[in-house]
Amino acid sequence: MTIQEIADFIGIDCQEKKDIIGLNTLTDSNENELTFLENKKYLSDLKNTKAAAVLVTAENASEVPLGTIALICEEPYLMLAKISKLFTPNVIEMDGEKPLIGGGTKVMPNVYIGKDSIIGSDCTIMAGAFIGDNVKIGNNTIIYPNVTVYRDCTIGSDCIIHAGTVIGSDGFGFANTKDGKYIKIYQNGNVTIGNDVEIGANSTIDRAVFKSTIIEDGVRIDNLVHVGHNCKIGRGSILVAQVGISGSSILNAYVVMGGQSATAGHLEIAAFSTIAARGGVTKSINEPKKSWAGFPLIEHRQWLRLQGKIANLLK
Amino acid sequence: MTIQEIADFIGIDCQEKKDIIGLNTLTDSNENELTFLENKKYLSDLKNTKAAAVLVTAENASEVPLGTIALICEEPYLMLAKISKLFTPNVIEMDGEKPLIGGGTKVMPNVYIGKDSIIGSDCTIMAGAFIGDNVKIGNNTIIYPNVTVYRDCTIGSDCIIHAGTVIGSDGFGFANTKDGKYIKIYQNGNVTIGNDVEIGANSTIDRAVFKSTIIEDGVRIDNLVHVGHNCKIGRGSILVAQVGISGSSILNAYVVMGGQSATAGHLEIAAFSTIAARGGVTKSINEPKKSWAGFPLIEHRQWLRLQGKIANLLK
Amino acid sequence: MTIQEIADFIGIDCQEKKDIIGLNTLTDSNENELTFLENKKYLSDLKNTKAAAVLVTAENASEVPLGTIALICEEPYLMLAKISKLFTPNVIEMDGEKPLIGGGTKVMPNVYIGKDSIIGSDCTIMAGAFIGDNVKIGNNTIIYPNVTVYRDCTIGSDCIIHAGTVIGSDGFGFANTKDGKYIKIYQNGNVTIGNDVEIGANSTIDRAVFKSTIIEDGVRIDNLVHVGHNCKIGRGSILVAQVGISGSSILNAYVVMGGQSATAGHLEIAAFSTIAARGGVTKSINEPKKSWAGFPLIEHRQWLRLQGKIANLLK
Repeated sequence: MTIQEIADFIGIDCQEKKDIIGLNTLTDSNENELTFLENKKYLSDLKNTKAAAVLVTAENASEVPLGTIALICEEPYLMLAKISKLFTPNVIEMDGEKPLIGGGTKVMPNVYIGKDSIIGSDCTIMAGAFIGDNVKIGNNTIIYPNVTVYRDCTIGSDCIIHAGTVIGSDGFGFANTKDGKYIKIYQNGNVTIGNDVEIGANSTIDRAVFKSTIIEDGVRIDNLVHVGHNCKIGRGSILVAQVGISGSSILNAYVVMGGQSATAGHLEIAAFSTIAARGGVTKSINEPKKSWAGFPLIEHRQWLRLQGKIANLLK
Repeated sequence: MTIQEIADFIGIDCQEKKDIIGLNTLTDSNENELTFLENKKYLSDLKNTKAAAVLVTAENASEVPLGTIALICEEPYLMLAKISKLFTPNVIEMDGEKPLIGGGTKVMPNVYIGKDSIIGSDCTIMAGAFIGDNVKIGNNTIIYPNVTVYRDCTIGSDCIIHAGTVIGSDGFGFANTKDGKYIKIYQNGNVTIGNDVEIGANSTIDRAVFKSTIIEDGVRIDNLVHVGHNCKIGRGSILVAQVGISGSSILNAYVVMGGQSATAGHLEIAAFSTIAARGGVTKSINEPKKSWAGFPLIEHRQWLRLQGKIANLLK
Repeated sequence: MTIQEIADFIGIDCQEKKDIIGLNTLTDSNENELTFLENKKYLSDLKNTKAAAVLVTAENASEVPLGTIALICEEPYLMLAKISKLFTPNVIEMDGEKPLIGGGTKVMPNVYIGKDSIIGSDCTIMAGAFIGDNVKIGNNTIIYPNVTVYRDCTIGSDCIIHAGTVIGSDGFGFANTKDGKYIKIYQNGNVTIGNDVEIGANSTIDRAVFKSTIIEDGVRIDNLVHVGHNCKIGRGSILVAQVGISGSSILNAYVVMGGQSATAGHLEIAAFSTIAARGGVTKSINEPKKSWAGFPLIEHRQWLRLQGKIANLLK
């Protein structure tokens, strides 16, 4: 789709015929992608973007670098939301190749496997599982009953996905209109799961808005855990039952999140951090190998002291 | 079923032949419905009820209005529970019309659609979805894989229901017997979802005991959210992941509930209220447009101050 | 499998030909089972074990009782994890008898019922349900759509399991290697659910590592509840929505857990205890019939007082 066509769609005049193949962030966009700037906090990213075009307010247009076309509009984020629909693939592909199933893989009854999907050898796909279009699964992986894997996601080898878990549902993203309507930001990314990952029952891993939500090798996720869009769960990390990881947060390697703990979005947790049960992480944790607890979060041994002090209030 | 038959069923003598078509609250009952009074708090509602008959203790029988028959018993709530079974429809309808599916609607394999159900045009019903009997779905709605919609529920147009979500499961209701048994209160209401609603993966919206659990137009619900029976989620409200809304609570328009926040039951939240992540609402919020946090809940800026004061305890 | 074969598998020399039929704890093992000691806290259990053999460090080997063979190794728990795979049954049984379905039981389309399973009379198994191999279900039980019951689990009579719930998924158990890999402890136990139990939508009940996770008669579980492996939920207990019960915890009869409350693992809660919403139980509760709240947990009336004291900090 050309920049001109996109501009037309949102009522902007632009004659540029260059082809756009997708949407992305300021920092990750390449010369065939469209991006946006809504929040001035990212002005420095704008100056360095490689994007073909950027949705931007008049106020910030002067910062758009040479080689990037400025699509000037009042509400860049809302325009991005509207445009995102143009780039979303079909909910179900009607065309495409029949799935490829490797040797030794058992597919039980009542399983749906979509077009262009490739499943490795020695896997077990149990009854009621849904494997969407263009999904890739490695070897020796077990998909338990009633699991749903949305289109375009990938799962590595030696993984176990327990019953009812959903991989690749849409991230929670929308823009507001002035009259109180929400315009969906189509989540055109995917989920990428490494090797030797086990995910418990009825957990949900949302697909990325752009690029991938990433679950690295060796991660262990318990039941009823939520991982938001564009998160990265680092190698060997452990998420205990009912944990919630908000969108765009990054857990480095071997982070342990206790039961019902959670993070806010857009933060980073240093490797080998331990968050106690119910801990609520609202800021990035930069120092590795420490134990944290509470909400607001403090060091675990401080939290224990604090509870003593609080108990003293009753004296 | 006549009042006499109902009375017989619970061992009360009453000759009244009037027909009862359902159960309802004191305030909502019409002249063909049966109601009950257990808690004296609702005595004034009893005085104004339009119900055909009311289960009531001897103590309160004198307050039953003219035109309403008093069915006097020791444990009205328990009797209601027993009677509720008489009014519950079949788990599966064997009779009834084949479902009507509108033009342009795609129904994938391994989908079940029940008797008398009507699905509009241009919908997508994905593999493994269960659409119960007498369900109504509007146009252009997507039901993702392994979603379950229980009988009698309605979903509007332009909705998206993500994988694994359950609409219309029974509300959590039962009465105690003196010997420690729980008698199920059959949940004979439904769930009614408006237009332009998106619900994430593996969330659960319980059906009402009487009438409807209501999700109004434009609501956005994230993953693993629980909405109890008889709640109303007002227009444009946002429920972030892992939120829990207890039964009979009302969120007015544009309420935002942060991740893992929750409400107690039987309360009301004013329009445009924002509850921070983990906030716990235990009383009604009457003033609109304010931000709240904590458990117990206080104004958000007070909560921030309070956390500073608590941190000072460590000094 | 003989002790010698097991020893060979983990690189230990042992000539003993005695047959081992399963793994178990120090206290529960019988003379045909293998057990382990990792934590010195359980040394007294070692002295009294009836197990055929025990994985144990050299340091503790002298405490192994007569009649039990010591398999001496550096990392007993890790060795147990490796051995657990040898005792795990097939994910899907290819052999075995066709399931037996009692009179009056309705099985809807798109249901899978495994080998050797027995379903009683007058049950309803709704579309999309998965009933694994060797599952036993009593009479008059309703399994709603898209429920998954893993192999070897049992469900009693007069139960209701709501849509999307998962019974018998693997407990969250693994041992660490020194180089940061997790070795799965295969969960070779099951889930045993009594009579007259209702479980809400999208809840998860994990199977035991050894023996059974137990849900006793009359229990009521709401939506999105997690029960970890080897828990026992006592008769008549109530778990409100989004509760989390960590592994190996025991709730005695008629315990009530409010919404979003949780327990740590390996603890016991006395009968008739009430835990308020959001309460976090981190130690055993020995005295019955009390009400508790908060995290850390204190008596409910103390918690109310404490909140008053905390609010005073703002003055």
